[in-house]
Amino acid sequence: MRNTSEEVRVLIYGVGAIGSRIAKLILKKKGFKIVGAVDISPDRKGKDLGEVIGISRELGVIVSEDAEEILSSVKADVAVHATSSFFKTVYPQIANIVKHGVNVVSTCEELAYPYIVDASLAASLDSLAKKHGVTVLGTGINPGFLMDTLPIALSGVCQEIESIRVERVIDAAKRRLPFQKKIGAGLSPQEFDEMIKKGRITGHVGLEQSVSMIADALKLDLEEVKVEPVRPVIAEKPVESREIKVEKGMVAGLTQTAYGLISGEPFITLVFKAYIGAREEYDSIIIEGTPRINQRITPCVHGDLATAAVVVNSIPKVIKAPPGLKTMKDLPVPSAVLGDVRKYLADKS
Amino acid sequence: MRNTSEEVRVLIYGVGAIGSRIAKLILKKKGFKIVGAVDISPDRKGKDLGEVIGISRELGVIVSEDAEEILSSVKADVAVHATSSFFKTVYPQIANIVKHGVNVVSTCEELAYPYIVDASLAASLDSLAKKHGVTVLGTGINPGFLMDTLPIALSGVCQEIESIRVERVIDAAKRRLPFQKKIGAGLSPQEFDEMIKKGRITGHVGLEQSVSMIADALKLDLEEVKVEPVRPVIAEKPVESREIKVEKGMVAGLTQTAYGLISGEPFITLVFKAYIGAREEYDSIIIEGTPRINQRITPCVHGDLATAAVVVNSIPKVIKAPPGLKTMKDLPVPSAVLGDVRKYLADKS
Repeated sequence: MRNTSEEVRVLIYGVGAIGSRIAKLILKKKGFKIVGAVDISPDRKGKDLGEVIGISRELGVIVSEDAEEILSSVKADVAVHATSSFFKTVYPQIANIVKHGVNVVSTCEELAYPYIVDASLAASLDSLAKKHGVTVLGTGINPGFLMDTLPIALSGVCQEIESIRVERVIDAAKRRLPFQKKIGAGLSPQEFDEMIKKGRITGHVGLEQSVSMIADALKLDLEEVKVEPVRPVIAEKPVESREIKVEKGMVAGLTQTAYGLISGEPFITLVFKAYIGAREEYDSIIIEGTPRINQRITPCVHGDLATAAVVVNSIPKVIKAPPGLKTMKDLPVPSAVLGDVRKYLADKS
Repeated sequence: MRNTSEEVRVLIYGVGAIGSRIAKLILKKKGFKIVGAVDISPDRKGKDLGEVIGISRELGVIVSEDAEEILSSVKADVAVHATSSFFKTVYPQIANIVKHGVNVVSTCEELAYPYIVDASLAASLDSLAKKHGVTVLGTGINPGFLMDTLPIALSGVCQEIESIRVERVIDAAKRRLPFQKKIGAGLSPQEFDEMIKKGRITGHVGLEQSVSMIADALKLDLEEVKVEPVRPVIAEKPVESREIKVEKGMVAGLTQTAYGLISGEPFITLVFKAYIGAREEYDSIIIEGTPRINQRITPCVHGDLATAAVVVNSIPKVIKAPPGLKTMKDLPVPSAVLGDVRKYLADKS
């Protein structure tokens, strides 16, 4: 049991775009202390963390490429991990953190529900975490909240459910240029197909995780989790962002759909759309059931801001949770960390 | 640890309108067995539970007025308790259930967050539950979900929050006649005031609980939880339900507002409105924060259907929870029980 008057000691593992956002948010909150930072990128290693994340002061924490050395020399309560979307890529990194007795909150999309990627690797991670008395969580806004935790929570008011449909529609014109490029905005349909083939447009990672987490929470016997190939959204009229003009017939962005099938019919449908010119941005959940639930968040929740928030807000819950590999459905209802984070650890329950 | 192949044995404690709905829902689900029923009403005691809840078959469970005798003679896993809105009224009933080693899910509104009603009585109940190794939860749709658990969950995506506003607007014309009467529909303003003075219109119980649960989850230092007096909604034009005509200037229903104040300003605002002629029924949550969250459920969630659902869906979570007095914010994310309830207990986590 940690002394609740002590600061929560955080290791930043991965200081890219998301890791930097998380670090900045942690610096705004009371009761945290960043005790180390790990990143293998030549642009970042050896520099002060303050410089790497783009704030105007030094933090006295040098970004190291040597995770082992940092983990051995600093005593952290939790590592905030943001390096890759893929479970098998992050497994050795996270296993190493766990072996040093440090809790993990990771933005790795596949870790949000890793059992479907590699059940035995997930079981190993669970055992390892239990052995070392720490908790591991993969989370973020999506996967991690909007298309899994939130529909699961809303299902809690239903007597019966026939189907669940979740949509996330993002107007890419309102996002950073790298995001617009990532979704293929401005390409011709042929170029888009090429980029897909070359793996340079991968689409959103995590729909499969969200379908599976919902199915697990509701104990649905899905026949299949079906993820449709990424498809381009073709502009029906000229649309533009500040940076990109999309002519009619060209690619405005992309869409992806995933299903959880029972008796050949979709019980769960998740639709993700991100394109320039979306008339309305929203996150919607429709549960056909008793009662029927028709829920909508307008505009859609801002992904970058919210992912950093979900990660930081999860830290006290992860520290307090029983050891093991957890998903968002296993933890208490999410909630914001607004004051000193130590207040959220002093809680009796 | 219970054997997860055995049915979940349920005691129905209180077989009024809500208790009956819950019992009927339990009968529709697999894996439950109703092993007893308690009600002191002369209309119900001594009758078969099937007759009392209005289904066409006998259940072989006789409603008894003697809780002590039933608790001593049947071995239940959980009691579904629905007798009163007030913590001090239900305390002896629930303490007695707990002493028999039975978990409790109660619709008692004040039990949704009883610490503000009587902190020492709540602490006693917590100790008693821990001593007997059982869990006690007060829940329902409101309080219990829409105006507390759901805004808490949505706060989890925010970096910072300036204020939270939750509204529940019900068109009373779509509800049962007893509900329309309970909110004073059709009365003159003078008659409404009389009914308030006589305590015959009490309004909704639980806003104070919801404000306090949100404040606890977010560790807000509220100066005050302020509950405004119940006010009539005056018809601005003639409105009507099938049963009641409301002339212009007469009472169409009621509204209640509660605040959680910080520095004299409402950080939390909860508005409840139920009246004939509401143009739109909805449950809305607006979080002014980073990011801003604007969420809406349309129409508002059906109260009676959803309260029974929330209670039944909470049963496996309560059975699996560590012993003690819990509130919804302490339990894992709510979720529906759709198949055999035993599947939800077999879960490893």
